[in-house]
Amino acid sequence: MKIGLAQINAVVGDFPANVKRILAAYRECLDGGAELVVTPELALVGYPPRDLVFKSHFVPRCLQALDYLAGEIGEVPLVVGYIDVHHPARPGKPFRNAAAWLEQGAIRQRIWKTLLPTYDVFDERRYFEPGETCEPLRWNGWRIGVTICEDIWTDESLQRPFYDRDPVAELSTLGIDLLLNLSASPFHLGKPLQRQALISGVARAAKVPVVYCNAVGGNDQLVFDGHSLVADAAGHIRAQLPGFVETCLVIDPFNTATAAQIEAEADPAQLYQALVLGLRDYVTKCGFSSVCLGLSGGIDSALTAVIAADALGPQAVHGLTMPSGYSSAGSVEDSLALAHNLGIGCDVVPIGDAFEAVKAAMQPVFAGKPEDVTEENMQARIRGLLLMALSNKEGRLLLTTGNKSELAVGYCTIYGDMCGGLAVISDLPKVRVYEVARWLNREREVIPWSTIDKPPSAELRPDQKDQDTLPPYETLDAILELYVEQHLSADEIIGRGFEENTVRWIQRRVDLNEWKRQQAAPGLRVTSKAFGIGRRMPIVQRFGG
Amino acid sequence: MKIGLAQINAVVGDFPANVKRILAAYRECLDGGAELVVTPELALVGYPPRDLVFKSHFVPRCLQALDYLAGEIGEVPLVVGYIDVHHPARPGKPFRNAAAWLEQGAIRQRIWKTLLPTYDVFDERRYFEPGETCEPLRWNGWRIGVTICEDIWTDESLQRPFYDRDPVAELSTLGIDLLLNLSASPFHLGKPLQRQALISGVARAAKVPVVYCNAVGGNDQLVFDGHSLVADAAGHIRAQLPGFVETCLVIDPFNTATAAQIEAEADPAQLYQALVLGLRDYVTKCGFSSVCLGLSGGIDSALTAVIAADALGPQAVHGLTMPSGYSSAGSVEDSLALAHNLGIGCDVVPIGDAFEAVKAAMQPVFAGKPEDVTEENMQARIRGLLLMALSNKEGRLLLTTGNKSELAVGYCTIYGDMCGGLAVISDLPKVRVYEVARWLNREREVIPWSTIDKPPSAELRPDQKDQDTLPPYETLDAILELYVEQHLSADEIIGRGFEENTVRWIQRRVDLNEWKRQQAAPGLRVTSKAFGIGRRMPIVQRFGG
Repeated sequence: MKIGLAQINAVVGDFPANVKRILAAYRECLDGGAELVVTPELALVGYPPRDLVFKSHFVPRCLQALDYLAGEIGEVPLVVGYIDVHHPARPGKPFRNAAAWLEQGAIRQRIWKTLLPTYDVFDERRYFEPGETCEPLRWNGWRIGVTICEDIWTDESLQRPFYDRDPVAELSTLGIDLLLNLSASPFHLGKPLQRQALISGVARAAKVPVVYCNAVGGNDQLVFDGHSLVADAAGHIRAQLPGFVETCLVIDPFNTATAAQIEAEADPAQLYQALVLGLRDYVTKCGFSSVCLGLSGGIDSALTAVIAADALGPQAVHGLTMPSGYSSAGSVEDSLALAHNLGIGCDVVPIGDAFEAVKAAMQPVFAGKPEDVTEENMQARIRGLLLMALSNKEGRLLLTTGNKSELAVGYCTIYGDMCGGLAVISDLPKVRVYEVARWLNREREVIPWSTIDKPPSAELRPDQKDQDTLPPYETLDAILELYVEQHLSADEIIGRGFEENTVRWIQRRVDLNEWKRQQAAPGLRVTSKAFGIGRRMPIVQRFGG
Repeated sequence: MKIGLAQINAVVGDFPANVKRILAAYRECLDGGAELVVTPELALVGYPPRDLVFKSHFVPRCLQALDYLAGEIGEVPLVVGYIDVHHPARPGKPFRNAAAWLEQGAIRQRIWKTLLPTYDVFDERRYFEPGETCEPLRWNGWRIGVTICEDIWTDESLQRPFYDRDPVAELSTLGIDLLLNLSASPFHLGKPLQRQALISGVARAAKVPVVYCNAVGGNDQLVFDGHSLVADAAGHIRAQLPGFVETCLVIDPFNTATAAQIEAEADPAQLYQALVLGLRDYVTKCGFSSVCLGLSGGIDSALTAVIAADALGPQAVHGLTMPSGYSSAGSVEDSLALAHNLGIGCDVVPIGDAFEAVKAAMQPVFAGKPEDVTEENMQARIRGLLLMALSNKEGRLLLTTGNKSELAVGYCTIYGDMCGGLAVISDLPKVRVYEVARWLNREREVIPWSTIDKPPSAELRPDQKDQDTLPPYETLDAILELYVEQHLSADEIIGRGFEENTVRWIQRRVDLNEWKRQQAAPGLRVTSKAFGIGRRMPIVQRFGG
């Protein structure tokens, strides 16, 4: 049985465009000889639609689009993800996360998602009622299990055993020949490998081939990486679709003659591709065609610029480098060298006069109080103001360039360097920023080596270095991993051998800066626990570390 | 049976302080002759703790605090809200939203919340596993039903029938003499009346008295208003505790001799008290003692200043009025008159020179392009920068002053007038801002009448008025109510008689400005649908209206 996998990039809520995209992929699969075509989860809708589903006409329009789509489907069935209504008179949530089996111009069958993730970035119990039964679908003598994303995730693959049901086991007990899974499984580092192990295990447990079609594309903070998979009944991965691109594949999962050659991609390559796709989709799906950003001569803004130039083309990217009296010569030189390497525009806009004017305005209020972090923040905020002016004047989306380590401890200025519509690398710890930058330079100098090699500095006071304030980044990132991602206490982290004062300083800074992060630009999630929608901390709290 | 209601104001995660608070209220109730004392939901923890519960030592410390608390309890039982663990080896969420019956130094009984709200501002299925059974607790010959918040909310009180269980009916079937409810039910306009009807109906249905103890205090965006209630078995409200204050009451719900005299408070009085409490708790629970804000001479900043001066005392509030060449004389005069009326400090800081310096810096980049909204935003951002400088220099929390109507359509400048740690009135539609301002002035002029009577203006270009850009506020607010709160489509709103161009303009502006709102300061929720944690829209979407 030849099955087409339509690994498509849907736009949330754009039903007409998503129908077109699905039909184009369906027809491409037909041309490839497919006898059955599968899309990702909620392919008709885009994942996640979040509270859009509550709009009075959102799900009705989705159902209209499904009807239209069904009318375009012939003998070769299409299994497509959409949102259905739950029975209005029965208790529960108003909707279903659903898949429809379309065939011969009609909706032949509707399947509900059974396991509804409600953790991390997922809120499905807010919207959906789980399916009550899991039954195989019969088609041409085959018994096919149709599942949606979480339905096949086993206890071992999750943080803890969340569910008291096991759709794969229920389907297996009833008897299936093939398992389909429609997914919208977002990327984080290591996820593609994790999914291979999962799909392989599911196939082995169910003793049938598994066809796993994952979404691709960026939607707000989430980047879906594709990497759809096909496993045979013995659990061998027979195909993996390319990552980070919209694509189709037609394959017979019962024909196990050829094994897939899957090259594991290096971490920086994965991270970089995810960020390029996430940036491109955020900018273009929002309707922008160009971006701007501040270039400081430092590594964070340099990496952000490279990602932007790759995602949108260099002509769509414009930098400002904004020296002050505290800026090193390198800050302008390295910025211009980077701009030259990338072929992007860059203007030099000194901030000295504006800084003096702002200080003068506040002088009567401050009445002789000494300069302190206030004046450092003023400089960062003047730069933010100038960048937003460029953004407003030219209709460019401003990219903010901060990394995860500084966002964690608040080593960044709100309304200053935090200004922007998208925080491109805000989920990359600083050590990873260096790793990706060196990987980018593996063949030729993309980011000036002087940018990579110099000690990092905010250059907001004379001879300032990040490490005047922060622990070494290796230490900072290691502690942040334990505190933020693993939720360990300061005491537990100290118990692992880290220096007490450092741990407590980091813990306090992370907690105190929650308010800043809640006003941060959305960031592209590339680790298993990003600041953003998957981490919901109160601002007002006194728990401590 | 004399029951003590401990309507306390807990701080999220501050277990030692919450224990003290609970014990103080418990002892106050003992002094009043209480034979049983009840706290609000999660009184030991503060509601909502959100993802703090995932910290490795959060729930363990909660359980330690509960043990300590139990040791302090004598013959008079205390029913207290806390978080318990779910069985680690059983599938489901890791925790329980729980109540403990403490008596004679021990935990006599643990009760789990059965109905877990997962809609609007609530995320309880993210954290908690529901209780499996509802059974009365036997004490001194009484059969007592202990329920937690949502457990008693009936289908009619909710948006739709969410649940297939009914804890009150289950308890009634088994037989109870009294129903207790521990709540953390946040305020919105109309909620106190809604709760009276609910509690009255529950008492009538169960044919027993209901003692309903609600939380009070602000936690991030939520304001809990107290207004705890006692109903007799016939459904008559026998007592309502005061709103917006920490307090206790001892009452015998079986003694129906006296009926409660409940005066319904006017809308502006409710709104004002909620905002004062929300501001005070946000500022002080965050550890600040003073605030600053920009005073424009307009009504939004004036109302915000009044609330702040009331919440924190006038000496804790400092204003800046920052005229430009486009400012009216009234902007400074009215600001100073307001500051005088309130007894708060106010400095005049002209922005002209800083504005010129910023324009001059960008002049080579803009190369003769005409002035437009860019320069308007520059002025707003210079003001934000100056206010943040004051905040940084003096350790004051900056309050932002925008209202809900302008936040909805993006008639505000991100990183400009949106700067601040708390958006005090961001859930008040402009028409409500006027209503509250006039109510404040009912006896004497608090807000200068000239501020209330003049046409609203951002004063960012010559002779600018809000109504050059926006529809009249009555129209705008009416359409926003239908579009944002009721989720109607543009077509449906037009069908109700509103002008098509106006509706479509508003709909587009609301959708386009989602990115701004996601970087807005947290706002105090006072309506049934605030922007903030209860409304989760994607930024990247193309659904349209």
